Amino acid sequence: MGFWKSLFNGSGSASSQAVISANGLGYQVEDATSNSQSGVKSRILFSKERELDLYELEELCDAVGWSRRPLRKVRKAIQHSFLVISMWEQRGNYRRLIGFSRATSDHAFNATIWDVVVHPDFQGRGLGRALMKEIIRELRNQDISNITLFADPHVVNFYRDLGFSPDPEGIKGMFWYPNSR
Amino acid sequence: MGFWKSLFNGSGSASSQAVISANGLGYQVEDATSNSQSGVKSRILFSKERELDLYELEELCDAVGWSRRPLRKVRKAIQHSFLVISMWEQRGNYRRLIGFSRATSDHAFNATIWDVVVHPDFQGRGLGRALMKEIIRELRNQDISNITLFADPHVVNFYRDLGFSPDPEGIKGMFWYPNSR
Repeated sequence: MGFWKSLFNGSGSASSQAVISANGLGYQVEDATSNSQSGVKSRILFSKERELDLYELEELCDAVGWSRRPLRKVRKAIQHSFLVISMWEQRGNYRRLIGFSRATSDHAFNATIWDVVVHPDFQGRGLGRALMKEIIRELRNQDISNITLFADPHVVNFYRDLGFSPDPEGIKGMFWYPNSR
Repeated sequence: MGFWKSLFNGSGSASSQAVISANGLGYQVEDATSNSQSGVKSRILFSKERELDLYELEELCDAVGWSRRPLRKVRKAIQHSFLVISMWEQRGNYRRLIGFSRATSDHAFNATIWDVVVHPDFQGRGLGRALMKEIIRELRNQDISNITLFADPHVVNFYRDLGFSPDPEGIKGMFWYPNSR
C-alpha cells in the first residue's frame, strides 16, 4: 500500500454529516460541511505512514485535552506499534492532521487499539467511526482475530456501536498500579 | 541478560508452599514440595528466551485445557511479543516447562499481558504469582508505565492481589466481534 490509502473527493452533497459507505477501496467520506463553508473542495484521507510530524500530532492531542507526553517516547511508541492510522483533511494544497489511532499486536492473534483521537472541529461527522472502521479493516486484513481496546466510560457506547463488547463472558480489563502491592 | 534469569536452589524448607521474596536478582522460589517427594533437588527458573520448543508449550497449554492454535501463528506471536517469560522446573539434568506468559507492547507506554499459564501440577504454590511478578518487574524495568491485561472472571481476584484494578475509573475492556456490525 502506498502512502495515501483512501482518497476521495468532497462531493458538494447537501448533507452536513459525513456519508460513510464501505466499498472496495475503503470507506468513502464525503465531507460536504467544510466544502460549503469555503468553496474549496475538501477530502478526507487515511494514511498508514509512520513518519508523522510529531508536533502536529501533539497539537491534535492538545486539542482534545490529553496530557503531553515526551516526543521521544511518542516516536518510539509509533515505531513499535503494529498499525498506525492517521486521518487528514486535504483542502487544495493544504493537508491537516485531524485524526489518529494506533494498535499494538503480536502480529498473529491479538491487537489492542490505543490513542484514538479526532480533532474537535471534525467531531460529530462520523469521522471517528470511519477512522475506527479503517483500523478494524486493516487488522482483519492482517488476520488478527482478537481486536481489543480499553474504553473510557463516555465512549463505551461509541465502541459498542462499532461491534465492541464490554466484558464479554465476564472478561475484565485490568490495569496495574505501581506500589499498589 | 543471559538465557536463565533467576536461578535458585530448592532449599528443603518444611513449607509445601513456594516461598517468594523479592531480592536484587528477582524472585526467590524455594520449591520444597517436589524436593521432598523425590529426594532430588528441584529449582524454579525463569527465562526470557524465545527459542522455545513449541510442542512443549502446546503440551503445557493442553494441560490447562486451552484450544490448540496453529504452531506457525504461535511462533509468529512469540517473535512479535515485547516480552516472553517462561518458567521451568529443573530437577537434576531434567528441565520442564511449567509456566509461560508474554506481553505485547509499543515499547514506550503500554503493555498487555497475554497467555498466562501454569501447569496444573505446579498450581497452588505461588508460582503463578512469581511468574506475574517477574513479568511486571521486567516491564517496569523497560519503563512501561501502563501494564494491562484481560482477565477471565475466575482469575480477577488473582490479578487484583497482584495490584491490578478492574475497570479503573470506569475504563472498560472491550472485544470486537466479527460481523456484529
